[in-house]
Amino acid sequence: MRELLDQVRAGKASVDEAMQALRQLPFAELGYATVDHHRALRQGVPEVILGDGKTAPQIAGIAQELARTGQNVLVTRLDAAKANEVKALFPELAYKPDARIGTVEQTPIAPLGRRPVALVSAGTSDLPVAEECAETLRMLGGRVERVYDVGVAGIHRLLHKREVFDRTAVAIVVAGMEGALASVVGGLVTTPIIAVPTSVGYGASFGGVAALLGMLTSCASGVTVVNIDNGFGAAFAAARILRAGEA
Amino acid sequence: MRELLDQVRAGKASVDEAMQALRQLPFAELGYATVDHHRALRQGVPEVILGDGKTAPQIAGIAQELARTGQNVLVTRLDAAKANEVKALFPELAYKPDARIGTVEQTPIAPLGRRPVALVSAGTSDLPVAEECAETLRMLGGRVERVYDVGVAGIHRLLHKREVFDRTAVAIVVAGMEGALASVVGGLVTTPIIAVPTSVGYGASFGGVAALLGMLTSCASGVTVVNIDNGFGAAFAAARILRAGEA
Amino acid sequence: MRELLDQVRAGKASVDEAMQALRQLPFAELGYATVDHHRALRQGVPEVILGDGKTAPQIAGIAQELARTGQNVLVTRLDAAKANEVKALFPELAYKPDARIGTVEQTPIAPLGRRPVALVSAGTSDLPVAEECAETLRMLGGRVERVYDVGVAGIHRLLHKREVFDRTAVAIVVAGMEGALASVVGGLVTTPIIAVPTSVGYGASFGGVAALLGMLTSCASGVTVVNIDNGFGAAFAAARILRAGEA
Amino acid sequence: MRELLDQVRAGKASVDEAMQALRQLPFAELGYATVDHHRALRQGVPEVILGDGKTAPQIAGIAQELARTGQNVLVTRLDAAKANEVKALFPELAYKPDARIGTVEQTPIAPLGRRPVALVSAGTSDLPVAEECAETLRMLGGRVERVYDVGVAGIHRLLHKREVFDRTAVAIVVAGMEGALASVVGGLVTTPIIAVPTSVGYGASFGGVAALLGMLTSCASGVTVVNIDNGFGAAFAAARILRAGEA
Amino acid sequence: MRELLDQVRAGKASVDEAMQALRQLPFAELGYATVDHHRALRQGVPEVILGDGKTAPQIAGIAQELARTGQNVLVTRLDAAKANEVKALFPELAYKPDARIGTVEQTPIAPLGRRPVALVSAGTSDLPVAEECAETLRMLGGRVERVYDVGVAGIHRLLHKREVFDRTAVAIVVAGMEGALASVVGGLVTTPIIAVPTSVGYGASFGGVAALLGMLTSCASGVTVVNIDNGFGAAFAAARILRAGEA
Amino acid sequence: MRELLDQVRAGKASVDEAMQALRQLPFAELGYATVDHHRALRQGVPEVILGDGKTAPQIAGIAQELARTGQNVLVTRLDAAKANEVKALFPELAYKPDARIGTVEQTPIAPLGRRPVALVSAGTSDLPVAEECAETLRMLGGRVERVYDVGVAGIHRLLHKREVFDRTAVAIVVAGMEGALASVVGGLVTTPIIAVPTSVGYGASFGGVAALLGMLTSCASGVTVVNIDNGFGAAFAAARILRAGEA
Amino acid sequence: MRELLDQVRAGKASVDEAMQALRQLPFAELGYATVDHHRALRQGVPEVILGDGKTAPQIAGIAQELARTGQNVLVTRLDAAKANEVKALFPELAYKPDARIGTVEQTPIAPLGRRPVALVSAGTSDLPVAEECAETLRMLGGRVERVYDVGVAGIHRLLHKREVFDRTAVAIVVAGMEGALASVVGGLVTTPIIAVPTSVGYGASFGGVAALLGMLTSCASGVTVVNIDNGFGAAFAAARILRAGEA
Amino acid sequence: MRELLDQVRAGKASVDEAMQALRQLPFAELGYATVDHHRALRQGVPEVILGDGKTAPQIAGIAQELARTGQNVLVTRLDAAKANEVKALFPELAYKPDARIGTVEQTPIAPLGRRPVALVSAGTSDLPVAEECAETLRMLGGRVERVYDVGVAGIHRLLHKREVFDRTAVAIVVAGMEGALASVVGGLVTTPIIAVPTSVGYGASFGGVAALLGMLTSCASGVTVVNIDNGFGAAFAAARILRAGEA
Repeated sequence: MRELLDQVRAGKASVDEAMQALRQLPFAELGYATVDHHRALRQGVPEVILGDGKTAPQIAGIAQELARTGQNVLVTRLDAAKANEVKALFPELAYKPDARIGTVEQTPIAPLGRRPVALVSAGTSDLPVAEECAETLRMLGGRVERVYDVGVAGIHRLLHKREVFDRTAVAIVVAGMEGALASVVGGLVTTPIIAVPTSVGYGASFGGVAALLGMLTSCASGVTVVNIDNGFGAAFAAARILRAGEA
Repeated sequence: MRELLDQVRAGKASVDEAMQALRQLPFAELGYATVDHHRALRQGVPEVILGDGKTAPQIAGIAQELARTGQNVLVTRLDAAKANEVKALFPELAYKPDARIGTVEQTPIAPLGRRPVALVSAGTSDLPVAEECAETLRMLGGRVERVYDVGVAGIHRLLHKREVFDRTAVAIVVAGMEGALASVVGGLVTTPIIAVPTSVGYGASFGGVAALLGMLTSCASGVTVVNIDNGFGAAFAAARILRAGEA
Repeated sequence: MRELLDQVRAGKASVDEAMQALRQLPFAELGYATVDHHRALRQGVPEVILGDGKTAPQIAGIAQELARTGQNVLVTRLDAAKANEVKALFPELAYKPDARIGTVEQTPIAPLGRRPVALVSAGTSDLPVAEECAETLRMLGGRVERVYDVGVAGIHRLLHKREVFDRTAVAIVVAGMEGALASVVGGLVTTPIIAVPTSVGYGASFGGVAALLGMLTSCASGVTVVNIDNGFGAAFAAARILRAGEA
Repeated sequence: MRELLDQVRAGKASVDEAMQALRQLPFAELGYATVDHHRALRQGVPEVILGDGKTAPQIAGIAQELARTGQNVLVTRLDAAKANEVKALFPELAYKPDARIGTVEQTPIAPLGRRPVALVSAGTSDLPVAEECAETLRMLGGRVERVYDVGVAGIHRLLHKREVFDRTAVAIVVAGMEGALASVVGGLVTTPIIAVPTSVGYGASFGGVAALLGMLTSCASGVTVVNIDNGFGAAFAAARILRAGEA
Repeated sequence: MRELLDQVRAGKASVDEAMQALRQLPFAELGYATVDHHRALRQGVPEVILGDGKTAPQIAGIAQELARTGQNVLVTRLDAAKANEVKALFPELAYKPDARIGTVEQTPIAPLGRRPVALVSAGTSDLPVAEECAETLRMLGGRVERVYDVGVAGIHRLLHKREVFDRTAVAIVVAGMEGALASVVGGLVTTPIIAVPTSVGYGASFGGVAALLGMLTSCASGVTVVNIDNGFGAAFAAARILRAGEA
Repeated sequence: MRELLDQVRAGKASVDEAMQALRQLPFAELGYATVDHHRALRQGVPEVILGDGKTAPQIAGIAQELARTGQNVLVTRLDAAKANEVKALFPELAYKPDARIGTVEQTPIAPLGRRPVALVSAGTSDLPVAEECAETLRMLGGRVERVYDVGVAGIHRLLHKREVFDRTAVAIVVAGMEGALASVVGGLVTTPIIAVPTSVGYGASFGGVAALLGMLTSCASGVTVVNIDNGFGAAFAAARILRAGEA
Repeated sequence: MRELLDQVRAGKASVDEAMQALRQLPFAELGYATVDHHRALRQGVPEVILGDGKTAPQIAGIAQELARTGQNVLVTRLDAAKANEVKALFPELAYKPDARIGTVEQTPIAPLGRRPVALVSAGTSDLPVAEECAETLRMLGGRVERVYDVGVAGIHRLLHKREVFDRTAVAIVVAGMEGALASVVGGLVTTPIIAVPTSVGYGASFGGVAALLGMLTSCASGVTVVNIDNGFGAAFAAARILRAGEA
Repeated sequence: MRELLDQVRAGKASVDEAMQALRQLPFAELGYATVDHHRALRQGVPEVILGDGKTAPQIAGIAQELARTGQNVLVTRLDAAKANEVKALFPELAYKPDARIGTVEQTPIAPLGRRPVALVSAGTSDLPVAEECAETLRMLGGRVERVYDVGVAGIHRLLHKREVFDRTAVAIVVAGMEGALASVVGGLVTTPIIAVPTSVGYGASFGGVAALLGMLTSCASGVTVVNIDNGFGAAFAAARILRAGEA
């Protein structure tokens, strides 16, 4: 744009030509694509590929292209079988089966947040979602303190760990079935809370709907919710909060 | 039936006539209507009228007819305005606005259960349902120990009252919004638990559906659930349990 | 805790130290974890593992660890293929395919309840849920009297068996499709009733929702309901009632 | 059409003209509108006005116009207040508040069906729907035998009335809440069954959805269902069956 | 029962003994199980096995047992693979893949109905449900006249076949997607109509819900509906109507 | 923008200043707000106010402000009572009760479309939605040809009017209940079709959901759908099509 | 028909015979089946087979039969495996895996529309639906200009392409998840808009329901919607619009 | 607790007595009720009363009691009529009709957050929810910068205001209908985002469900969501974030 205006000033481009050109300029150059630029400027923020619904060759292709620019890459919802296929095509990919996440880590990740994030989960079946959250946060520079298997049916297990919340900046609560853990944690802590309903359960849990509704209607004030099984989104929301605390 | 068989024996009725007659006999006389008879024999068990969807004259008429036999009468879901109309027609009716219940109490109520029922509720808006439950239980002979306003967002309030559960036979948990209280109580006590979702809440509580689903998918084992706002049903279920304990 | 207080008394620990320590003590030691202790004290109450959503090695690992303490173990929702894998790793596991339950039974099970539980089911397709219920109850010490295949479309079959309800303490009703059996049984008996909707049916049964709604809105008073296909939960709720009857 | 063909035959109209005219002829004249003609030819079959969502003047206007041709008229879903307004404008209208139906009966109604229709209802709150059904059937020429207040929670009441089904041609079952009555009747009788779910109930009855799903998934074979609260439709369906029996 | 009454008359049994015995008698003997007896008396009415959710050995076992009494047998929702397994165990089974029905036909089927049933379907994908209906009707003694592939998007195809409805006693309409065919047929004919929504469609058809709701809310009066994909139920309902026409 | 570039050229503004200013310029000036400008340039296109959920003074205020610029104004979903209140404050408003629309018409409306729009509706209760559509189209310059009361239960009424579709450019189909009319019209015509489900109906029509699903899953190809009761939106969509035909 | 009328004229057929014959004539001959004829007359409009739910032999059979008449054929929702099977039986079929469409193209396709259709999609996972749309449009004679991967989370990408909308006649917007793209495009352009919700997403996207509801309730006026994943339907609707613009 | 331990140390209380007493101590004294104490210690954090579902006397009573301790009070969901009644009983209450909030402000509110919160809303009908959010935030010490009426159908209005997001710490997005605004804002900013779906809309917006689902499935990463119409909860969540930024 500067170049164009220099040409106008120098009389090399007419005003009409400049107006026409300005309208055609990519928006990125007009300053609207702040996210993209911001991202590009910040070292270590990964590009994200949703692995679900893409073939292994597609994932390998996109990952390779992104990796070429030196950026870190994060592939979510990548099951073990597909991960193997991708690795055959693109051996740089590291894979964490618990988190169903593949990563390429070639740029040092800038640490994010003065304090870690408390990652609370109700049962062992919620683990894949919790670990997706943990690994995403790690790639975004955050630290995680895990408080696992503290479902509300044994409330003393959670209360016993309550001091964790004194040293963490954000609480992410991952729970399926009735999702009551979000309400109990919401009543115990004063930090921001991000609740992640999981599809753990059967029958009237309706694939996570019971937990989702439970978290949305929580009697604890100020609980926020992300989509069912969206560990990635919760980590991203936590990173937004950690970043805001640094600003 | 005995009379008929006597006639057969005495030769006053033919076998064919007896067979015909036996088929026509009301079931009540053949022993199938155990509930009805049982009821009649047990002193003080009230006849129940669902007030909702009936006019005041209809309620007054039915109540009067039932009361004529000396039985106690219980009218549920009776709002204050309609209660006044009914009382104008049938002054014997006593009305408890908190419970939205009208009663006629002319037969002493036989006490039911060695120990009282713990009646736990989450918030003050759940009160009408809890009180419907309490008054129904009273009319059925049970005693109630109230543990009100112990929602899970302030979990210490509930834990502080935990000794109540040591001296009660059944726990009824009344909660709207996400209904998480049922899970927490379910993890604390070993007595039977009856969860009552209430329509308290807005938006994604969908008139009690969030609480209902939450209670059905509770991570605490052996929590049973009744219909939304069904304080009457919970009391009746508790009475079934108390009665079983006496048998 | 006693040790700590002894030290305070003996002057070996300061009051400040004691206060700090008391706050850090596991809740189990402060008396809140009554369920856990209660459980530990009662011989033969099994630890439960939800097999669904866990891998065979995970199940074998947890079962082995629990079995090491001498406790009985109950693995629910374990299909035949996975059960074989688990048995290869942990041969002590006994498997009942009808109930989809694996068990380790090394401690005698204390009998629970003076009278058996009536286990009523509508059709042969409801059998897996009913048997999950039966086997769970057996592991909890209860006895079961089966009344199978008495769907309401042939009401005489149920009526013919009505004397069962005179000698049982609780009725569990397992039914899919429209779940009407719960209402009919609810009108016949005075014992506590636990209704289990099953996912048997197609189309508008919506995976058990029709039966669930039918049971929640039953015209019989005091019918309680558990989650769809939750035979385990119904057994656990029945055990709570039997235990209450013994107290 | 005959006239046109006569003209063709007589050479007064060309073949082209006839073809053109035939395409323009109202369908009624081509024989497709059999229903309408059939109706007109059959004495006493009323014209139907759905009163719901129309103003009193609109209803009065349409009724008056229809009545002018000598036909009988049936106005459904007409509440008492609106009925009074309509009668002020059109005094010929007779009104039955129980059925929420207004009628004009100026042509003798031809009797329909060799045997009456059994009209079974579960509770007193289902009465308005049952009576809408009864009055509609009366206007269509059918006879009704009422079997009211025989909900499945007291199954003996229904069994006691079972001989009614031996002398009736069709059974209409009107029930709210869980709608189980349709299944029980469906198992008892061999006649056609039309189930009418009603919006009676609260909470998980979801305005009649629980009963609707229950009836659609009935374990009794060959139960057919109409819309929630559609007493009119059930009567109409029964009339179709009675008419088929006469053909 | 007669024997018992003879003994009373002869003084061989006391009245008390007789009363006791009468209460214990199987309901079948007291005349309530009319359906069952009725069935047994009527030649050729098959026993029905729902194949879905049963293993091949289970189906073969039940079919063999039923077949031993000389009755005809009908197995519904039996896919081709399972049918082969069943035939290996029980070669008497005949299988119709289009209808997904297996049959044993050893007793002549008594013809049912003076006129055939019109079986109308919207598209070729609705064929399996329509054929399940046709084969069930055949086994019940009814005749079928097929009117296939007359979806409302080409309304002339249906209108062209309208004379079929003049010679048939009942119309069964099988349609998926929006299920509009039921309304159009309902407006064309005066016979009883049974609408069968099918799960044909995708997206907002929600597995047949769109068609189901469309048929329940049909603007044509007196359309009755059975469960999604329930071709068997529609045939059974039609047989009830044909039988009523014969009575 | 031109002015700014002239200043750059003339050296009155630096390149840095220009870049800063360009980023701050309202989007409208950069050409993105095409819709708004387009609108302003086209004479007679009204500004639209959604009356629903606004108070009469709010509506009067906004309408007055818009009217000041000489534009035409369209207020939708304005009931008669509120319209009177608005007219008291802003007498220029004309009101059509059938369409629940208020208008200010001070600029001649430019005619839109070479051919009129066919506006088809199923029943008289769909009239308010159809008329909202008609009046909106009139204000947008379109002409409407009404084909009312042609529900599919009397298919000949629609077929009789089929020549209307030969002379119209677009068909808008307004129908409640099962919404089948859209499929039938969709099969008859080759023009664009916009289906408007209405909330007419009760029970399983679920406030227009049955019609909505029916229209979305229509077996006629290329039927497009707008929101329930959205007559305004259908008119607007038709205007987009008419405008495209003129371009 | 002409032949018949000639015979009437010539006296070879009586008026009664003619009337009888006219009623029996296929509707196609009476002019109602305009769509069919229209289609036959227009060169290059393909016959469509919905591949989903049909076996490969069925598809091959129907395709072969249609192809015999010289028409083009379009098979939608045909996955790669089934396509191979079909091609083994019917080698004339060309297959596009991206669009899941098989075609037989033996008649030149007449170009449709003066300007192309803008085909906008949100993410790469929406590609199969978008390509189904593109290939269908190609077979109908339309041209497509693709604007892919312009999801609203990076709004500048869409704005950057806004000039596409100046040269296209219709905009088709394909988006899953929240479907917001339809609203943003709807606000940017004045052309007709057809929104296609896709089943892309998980959890609360409920298989495309979130996108569907979002598009139906779009705040942009005049957005029309087709069924979830219905790329074919959107193309067909666009073709209706292009055709209307030519008329 | 300290007092007790002092007594133990001094030998005034036995260890047994101390153990007993410790178990009975209110949880508040054991440090679990951190929220409550925290609140009490922080000046100016108001006590909150949900006005909805409480009578005016109840609200006045609770407010008066809370106000007695010197705390600020916030009454949400208080309509104008009820507010008047409350003020008659408790004149200290100040009422803001736009926010439907009543307040008592007697303690200075401590400022919260270094930067204000961006409060973005789509349309004027979303105003009550947005203002509830603004007033709640004010009472919690936060500052708000309003960006109203920037719905995505006119995307340039939002883009024009994009610099607001550079100077705010959190973005709250309030939108009904399809809720697309949350996705667009989510793509523009890097701050935490809290999305509030509103019940604005009709038909397929299903009382806010369309917006809720749209926000939960947003294609922008890290968008968090609260309950429908829950402006209070969004403000509370924002306050949690602002507080975390201060810690």
